[in-house]
Amino acid sequence: MTDDPIYHVDGDLVPASEATVSVDDRGFRYGDAAFETMRAYGGTIFAWDRHRERLERTCKALSLSHGLSDNDLRARIDETLAANDLADAYVRLSITRGVQPGKLTPQPAVDPTVVIYVTPLPRGGLEGEPVWDEPATVQSVETRRVPAASVPATAKTHNYLNGILARTELQASDEPADEALMLDCSGSVAEGATSNLFFVADGVVHTPTLEADVLPGITRELVLEGARTVGLETRAGEYDLTDVRSADEAFLTNRTWELRPIATLDGHSIGGGPITEQLARHYDERVEKRCYSEADE
Amino acid sequence: MTDDPIYHVDGDLVPASEATVSVDDRGFRYGDAAFETMRAYGGTIFAWDRHRERLERTCKALSLSHGLSDNDLRARIDETLAANDLADAYVRLSITRGVQPGKLTPQPAVDPTVVIYVTPLPRGGLEGEPVWDEPATVQSVETRRVPAASVPATAKTHNYLNGILARTELQASDEPADEALMLDCSGSVAEGATSNLFFVADGVVHTPTLEADVLPGITRELVLEGARTVGLETRAGEYDLTDVRSADEAFLTNRTWELRPIATLDGHSIGGGPITEQLARHYDERVEKRCYSEADE
Repeated sequence: MTDDPIYHVDGDLVPASEATVSVDDRGFRYGDAAFETMRAYGGTIFAWDRHRERLERTCKALSLSHGLSDNDLRARIDETLAANDLADAYVRLSITRGVQPGKLTPQPAVDPTVVIYVTPLPRGGLEGEPVWDEPATVQSVETRRVPAASVPATAKTHNYLNGILARTELQASDEPADEALMLDCSGSVAEGATSNLFFVADGVVHTPTLEADVLPGITRELVLEGARTVGLETRAGEYDLTDVRSADEAFLTNRTWELRPIATLDGHSIGGGPITEQLARHYDERVEKRCYSEADE
Repeated sequence: MTDDPIYHVDGDLVPASEATVSVDDRGFRYGDAAFETMRAYGGTIFAWDRHRERLERTCKALSLSHGLSDNDLRARIDETLAANDLADAYVRLSITRGVQPGKLTPQPAVDPTVVIYVTPLPRGGLEGEPVWDEPATVQSVETRRVPAASVPATAKTHNYLNGILARTELQASDEPADEALMLDCSGSVAEGATSNLFFVADGVVHTPTLEADVLPGITRELVLEGARTVGLETRAGEYDLTDVRSADEAFLTNRTWELRPIATLDGHSIGGGPITEQLARHYDERVEKRCYSEADE
């Protein structure tokens, strides 16, 4: 893999430095596009079925009928990994509504633009290394998570300014935190700009409910399932910041970080702990076995 | 002007069919970009100063320091109009945060991507023709305007899914309405997917307040000022749908439509009327004189 990785754009493998889309592409003009962030471990996309399902939920929320088969999408991803000689990687798949005549109102006939990005990452699993150096410093921000009534929270789209504005708030500080924690419009804790939140109190594993305008993270789902598998009680609820600050343990999840303990929230020390470690180990075992459905347990 | 207009991309004039941006451009990945929709009348951008000011407000909201001078931007627009041999046109100016290293968190050093799009439009003014054929049919929708707490309402950005989702709701109907009217999250009437709303009741010209998460449209401002100039009482307030449905007159505004009467809202007839016509004539006079500041009145 060189400094100029190879991307997959609309059916062709092209050097990243030459990978482009039309300025008339609706993905550019309006952010009218769905995406998934995935990890390849040992050459295989982990939990592909779940990514595929969420992608379809996003596309359904956007009324975007892309017409691409499961095999087609997987083949493009496999070709991209092979072209970069990568087995362990970050993979992003974007599907836009393409170029359409007219202005804002989408047309039903879609010639989608498909882009696949890859970046090398460590191998993951029991002998892998996390991609982060230290537990995360987290700061709550003023920017509120976009409510589902405005844009469905389940949709993972190229409209990502909400998270960017949240992250931008961190930069006012001398030592910017690693992640910005957003509340929803009613003041409940929602999620980080690119991560879901978990905390442990009295042995129970808590995470904000999807009702709090939370993106249904796939790592979040796997951790909830994993917690139940190892016999822990879980709860998806509505919480305020004091619930999190006073927790015994807390961590963030996303595809890239997997499980990342929270060192501090708004300067209050929290840290990981035995349950976070147990859940991380269980997650690593699943990655090692490429096992990610409850039926496989 | 051919079927393949000439756009201005990052300093170069290029045929639209070849105009592209990097797939790593933040404008594509995240919709991390500001834009303005303008009209050129007789070769001059109408109310350029106001567009420039709003563009800067958007960029400030996004912490996007693009470093481009007023003269530079105007020169690019003028070059684009000249290359297309256009005097009367729709002009869209987009400025993105460009390609940056790292992931979501923006970096302060910006190499912006600047794109200018043009399309021919009628001349406007006293002897011009409106771009719309008929008064608008309008339908209120379930999609709520993104609250300012999530993304500032003053920012006109490439995150336009909210409006797309609103317009998509119309397509469930056999005869889709021309515009989708959104409420804000508290249930007050906000705006159309690409337009501001006005209505007339008992001789007073009403429009939703900017507090209702309304984009501060430049045509909206000009119409409010024009109404005061011709001696009409104006009010920017919070309204519900019944206020609008029971109005004596109603119309939509945006740069392209200018003033467009509302034929029906949710099937209730409203229509334009003498005050709408008076305001439209006043607007046309200003376009004719290229006069758009209160000081010019």
